Amino acid sequence: MLADIITIGDEILYGQIVDTNSAWLGTELAKIGVKVRQITSISDNPDHIIETLTALKPLTDVILITGGLGPTKDDLTKHTLCRYFNTQLVMDEGSLEHVTSFFTSRGRELTELNRQQALLPANCKPVANILGTAPAMWFEEEGIIYISMPGVPFEMKRIMTDTVLPELQKRAGGNQIIHKVIQTIGIGESFLAEKIANWEDALPAPIKLAYLPSLAGVRLRLTGQAAETVDLETQLNEQVEKLQTLIPEHIFALGEIPLPEAVGNLLKEKGFTVATAESCTGGHLAHKLTSMAGSSEYFMGSVVAYHNHVKINQLGISAEDLAQYGAVSEEVVSQMAANVRKLLNTDIGIATSGIAGPGGGTTEKPVGTVWVAYADAEKTVAKKIFYNKDRLLNIEYTTYTALNLVRQAILGV
Amino acid sequence: MLADIITIGDEILYGQIVDTNSAWLGTELAKIGVKVRQITSISDNPDHIIETLTALKPLTDVILITGGLGPTKDDLTKHTLCRYFNTQLVMDEGSLEHVTSFFTSRGRELTELNRQQALLPANCKPVANILGTAPAMWFEEEGIIYISMPGVPFEMKRIMTDTVLPELQKRAGGNQIIHKVIQTIGIGESFLAEKIANWEDALPAPIKLAYLPSLAGVRLRLTGQAAETVDLETQLNEQVEKLQTLIPEHIFALGEIPLPEAVGNLLKEKGFTVATAESCTGGHLAHKLTSMAGSSEYFMGSVVAYHNHVKINQLGISAEDLAQYGAVSEEVVSQMAANVRKLLNTDIGIATSGIAGPGGGTTEKPVGTVWVAYADAEKTVAKKIFYNKDRLLNIEYTTYTALNLVRQAILGV
Repeated sequence: MLADIITIGDEILYGQIVDTNSAWLGTELAKIGVKVRQITSISDNPDHIIETLTALKPLTDVILITGGLGPTKDDLTKHTLCRYFNTQLVMDEGSLEHVTSFFTSRGRELTELNRQQALLPANCKPVANILGTAPAMWFEEEGIIYISMPGVPFEMKRIMTDTVLPELQKRAGGNQIIHKVIQTIGIGESFLAEKIANWEDALPAPIKLAYLPSLAGVRLRLTGQAAETVDLETQLNEQVEKLQTLIPEHIFALGEIPLPEAVGNLLKEKGFTVATAESCTGGHLAHKLTSMAGSSEYFMGSVVAYHNHVKINQLGISAEDLAQYGAVSEEVVSQMAANVRKLLNTDIGIATSGIAGPGGGTTEKPVGTVWVAYADAEKTVAKKIFYNKDRLLNIEYTTYTALNLVRQAILGV
Repeated sequence: MLADIITIGDEILYGQIVDTNSAWLGTELAKIGVKVRQITSISDNPDHIIETLTALKPLTDVILITGGLGPTKDDLTKHTLCRYFNTQLVMDEGSLEHVTSFFTSRGRELTELNRQQALLPANCKPVANILGTAPAMWFEEEGIIYISMPGVPFEMKRIMTDTVLPELQKRAGGNQIIHKVIQTIGIGESFLAEKIANWEDALPAPIKLAYLPSLAGVRLRLTGQAAETVDLETQLNEQVEKLQTLIPEHIFALGEIPLPEAVGNLLKEKGFTVATAESCTGGHLAHKLTSMAGSSEYFMGSVVAYHNHVKINQLGISAEDLAQYGAVSEEVVSQMAANVRKLLNTDIGIATSGIAGPGGGTTEKPVGTVWVAYADAEKTVAKKIFYNKDRLLNIEYTTYTALNLVRQAILGV
């Protein structure tokens, strides 16, 4: 079963609203084996709506429409659907009852505009919107299902969950679709592709692979699609297991877990506490670690030592080493990691020192030159990276590299 | 001039990625007077791409394509555009040079997959992608402009800003469109609207006002649109000046200057240095201050005192006060600001302490209760806020409130 999503609203085209409804719909439909064929975002214009419906009709099985319902939009979608289906509005008694009780239960009077919300195209089956006043509408014509819903996210989601998804699942039968996400770090997309080429080529037919690169690494997504009778879950898990044996050092999470959370979970699991000493990341590393709820279990604090006098006075970095090697050096970053660990009395210290740019670069140490270090009671590990995009990206990339260093040091990979 | 956006990628249809690119494009295109007609999100399927291009071609002037470019087997857009334009790939020497230096400057070897990124359709004009390896492509055929860009947001935005938007603006011609942004903080949208209602009502016809609320305050955008002969710039500047006399205490910047930069500029101008002592913001305040190039002129460092023992040992907070008032209190946050100032030897200290959630709230101090403080040689000012959305939003809101406190204390507003 294929579905098309139409989102109606000038505010989406002007970029005043990010369309998060479609992503939610895509996720939920995939779970019941309905594949979204296309998402089309169009203006509040009746002709545009009709043209879009006409164009999509021969290509899909289900058309989900969000937006253009409600008193402020003049119920544009409803009138346009009447034109499209060549029918007219009639008062729906059930919907009138709902909208009336919606207002009276809130101690507010029903206006004529509200009353008109219960006027629905004669050929539709009304679908209850218990969180709002504009009912959703279900149409079936020439084998195509059309569902029109308000654009307000919480109303739309409730309508989908209570009524539309269960009903579509009944109709869809057929194929199941399962996704598995494997998150990697420390290897570029093309190198990763080369390293797992044999595995990828040998993937069984119903399983497809996608590379989703970002600053924090490359996410791999396996998508399996097969009849309900096939044990797709087992097939996918087998492939994930094979991949894990191929690149164990690069996989930091199975599923949609951000790197700071994966590292936080690892720290919690091992019972380790951590502190950071930051120069070029300027607090971003501490921020990422504390962006997770419950991080106070393992994160104790940070010394952001931007100026050298803070490195000397607070972190106890030797002024001689600073003068001899410079702040951006293996010697200094290693001392930072080891010293913050002792200072804040934690199991692990992490440190960063680099040139985030755009200023401050030299021929020897150009912008993007960064040292990160990890220290525990037994060892100190430092790593040099070079990454030069823009200041913020350099900072973010350093943070992810430092977090990965912690992961590698703890796991010994 | 009308534009259509096509976003390519199964991950959008599956809902694994929210399409934020389109909203950004819609906003930026609107600024240069180009209206987005439709956004179409489609799968990684060559036939689907060709069908979509063919369907949109008679309806629009510009087709912006994002996604489907990258050094893996997923990469289809380039090949599909060759099929659509009935042409073939040729090696583009400029792009090859760029991709080669991209890898060699990072000390990495160029693979065959990377080299192939410089193969481009013979009829395209390559557009530099300085932040990535996949070049963007500009096509013109039968009066329609086609621009194909990678889907990675920061690469796409840079390509648009550097090349595509200026070029489209030149082509769009016609009316001049000028925007003026006035950024306010510390006043809600509806209160602001009331306060400036008379000014708004008296705006001359070619000038329109938009309220753009965000966590960091309400941005006001004046948009003037008129024939080239009108002195629109002067008209707009007059209105901005009038507004400045109405709400001087709330305006922190004219133009798209983020609050941390506005505060940084103020510190630079006054020659003041600053340090932060952070509990609930966990380094976010330091991160925001250091996200600006040149921040080392005024930002010395930070002590992120997440655990109470760091507050006591590093910041010298009295253990008695911590026990008596709790970490989230006027007494403790004021000491934090005053002490970090002395500790890091700066003119100004800023501190935050609060309950970011989701855990840690009590009846007396529910999640969202936060104290921020400012200290200089003469005074200490503390402010209580209550803002409870989710953890990250609470942290961000606290950061902006603390920065505004610095601005107000320095300016005496």
